[in-house]
Amino acid sequence: MSAVYAVIMAGGSGTRFWPLSRAKTPKQVISMLGNKSLLQETVARLKGLIPNERIFIATNRHQKKVIAPQLPELSDNNYLIEPSARNTAPSIGLAAMHIKRIDPEGIMVILPSDHLVHNVEGFQKTVKVAVEAARKHDALVTFGIPPTRPETGYGYMQFSPGSPDLPETVHRVKTFAEKPNKATALRFISSGDFYWNSGIFIWKASRILAEFEEHLPDQSHQLELIEKSYGSPNYLRSLVTRYRRIRSISIDYGVMEVTKTPILMVEGNFGWSDVGSWDELYRQYTPGTDGNVIIGEGTTLDSKNCFVYSHDKMTALIGLENMLIVNTPNALLICPLDKAQNVKQIVEKIRAEGKEKYL
Amino acid sequence: MSAVYAVIMAGGSGTRFWPLSRAKTPKQVISMLGNKSLLQETVARLKGLIPNERIFIATNRHQKKVIAPQLPELSDNNYLIEPSARNTAPSIGLAAMHIKRIDPEGIMVILPSDHLVHNVEGFQKTVKVAVEAARKHDALVTFGIPPTRPETGYGYMQFSPGSPDLPETVHRVKTFAEKPNKATALRFISSGDFYWNSGIFIWKASRILAEFEEHLPDQSHQLELIEKSYGSPNYLRSLVTRYRRIRSISIDYGVMEVTKTPILMVEGNFGWSDVGSWDELYRQYTPGTDGNVIIGEGTTLDSKNCFVYSHDKMTALIGLENMLIVNTPNALLICPLDKAQNVKQIVEKIRAEGKEKYL
Repeated sequence: MSAVYAVIMAGGSGTRFWPLSRAKTPKQVISMLGNKSLLQETVARLKGLIPNERIFIATNRHQKKVIAPQLPELSDNNYLIEPSARNTAPSIGLAAMHIKRIDPEGIMVILPSDHLVHNVEGFQKTVKVAVEAARKHDALVTFGIPPTRPETGYGYMQFSPGSPDLPETVHRVKTFAEKPNKATALRFISSGDFYWNSGIFIWKASRILAEFEEHLPDQSHQLELIEKSYGSPNYLRSLVTRYRRIRSISIDYGVMEVTKTPILMVEGNFGWSDVGSWDELYRQYTPGTDGNVIIGEGTTLDSKNCFVYSHDKMTALIGLENMLIVNTPNALLICPLDKAQNVKQIVEKIRAEGKEKYL
Repeated sequence: MSAVYAVIMAGGSGTRFWPLSRAKTPKQVISMLGNKSLLQETVARLKGLIPNERIFIATNRHQKKVIAPQLPELSDNNYLIEPSARNTAPSIGLAAMHIKRIDPEGIMVILPSDHLVHNVEGFQKTVKVAVEAARKHDALVTFGIPPTRPETGYGYMQFSPGSPDLPETVHRVKTFAEKPNKATALRFISSGDFYWNSGIFIWKASRILAEFEEHLPDQSHQLELIEKSYGSPNYLRSLVTRYRRIRSISIDYGVMEVTKTPILMVEGNFGWSDVGSWDELYRQYTPGTDGNVIIGEGTTLDSKNCFVYSHDKMTALIGLENMLIVNTPNALLICPLDKAQNVKQIVEKIRAEGKEKYL
């Protein structure tokens, strides 16, 4: 029977959690909740499901330096190093080539490295259902998260509920919908047949490579040239030069939204969050009666629904509402929680001011 | 001719500038504006007007430890140590006793240690006018500041403008008015005959001691007993025990508002501020076009009229208005500027929580 491989996508370098996350220490490698980093949690979540030798970390050589010390249970063989950043499709293609080479029937479980899962047992059960569906139907399988609010920051998937040839929690996907506006999001969640796209994908390596051939022929061609040089003294040079030539594209745009192959969605009821914003991180905590969440030492007066993330000093709030305060050794951010998406802009501003040392 | 002595009141320990000011480093000894502390500025402001040997710092022994290193030009003889905190009247009484002892005709210029004066030349000219008025009329003389806004945090003095026997800038005070509400403050400033009470007083030592005898007989009695023991081995013990028995009272309540002796007010046009709140400190700066004042390193996005006081890190503001941010090595305060008067309450709260190390 074909084996199951995990591909953890750990090359991202967002700015949404500045000043907690930094250029050299992106979100997935910092401890946002608890002691482990989100990446460490992602790896730990696979324990008993996928053995370490079948876990691959897709990242770049810079981030590997930060990641490797966090994952002492893994070795160099566990890393798939991308020579340049080309978004998710090329990265998944490279991983699929690698897995197909070692196991022609191998099944890939593609996992973001910076998401949160509260119920690990439920997560593992869902992976097993998804792997079974990918194996049996040679389908593209995704995890759909039942939405709990009209979130405008996520993509959605519309599905046809139930099918006699599928398990109870597996459905056929009808359409992918990009991040909606508020009205559309409200319509989506009241319809009941739109789930959040978790960015978790399960399929045979051979299946996704066939999709590349059909829908991303240029990318596929470059990947095949890389593959051909594998084992030769030219390999690394070929990888670097050819990968750089590949056009950046996400797996959603490149494959999921255009494929004719059946896409199956497994219901993911395991307390998922993409922890994609300060706002979302705040929601992961249980606030006091005043709605304040204070990580570190703090005190408040006439303040509610504030989120303080500060480790090195006493933080005192007076008369604030819905405010985010992030205090790190060399930078302090203060921003209404509902404007936290503008953190990207302030990061750009600091960069433009030539103060990269704070980024 | 009688000599002029300065008595600088430096015993205060307010909490309005927490977390910048602390229990052990009150407002007058910290550098709020520029490099010098407000107390250093107060002493420097007397240069050329009153020689060092006639400057007295009224404080307590704890604060003297912080003050003395800031004023290397002064010696122990310049300090009048209060054994306990008894508000301004007893402190002024003790200083008056001391000055009368060394100079029966001595004139006292009583100055708060934590005020700001932008025009030192104007200040010195005003002191000279006031000293002359105190000498000639044996009056109680105050400095009245022409109000620039309907401030509710100051006391006011109503005066009768002009008098043939007085210089142009000297007026007779009719009434003292405590901190008014907004409507009353508006009425005061539109009337034109209400000036701010600066807390600066000028009079003969003998004059104020006569006032004590009449209006504060208990205090006067204790002060006389202290005075009688001066030079004896008992002096220090007498000072400590008798001063402790003196009832706390301010010079305004105890003398100014009840005396029948003429009170004269000299117009103080020298760019005065009591720097009594964060709000008022903010007003001392010239903000950028967006109204933001950032002391330290900072950057803003969609923010206006904010005041950042932070020295050790980059402060980034997004979407804030009229916000005060004070960042010190072990404490951070965030508060709307117009609620900065509640800082006292948060200090009480931190104390109640047993976290004195932050105070």
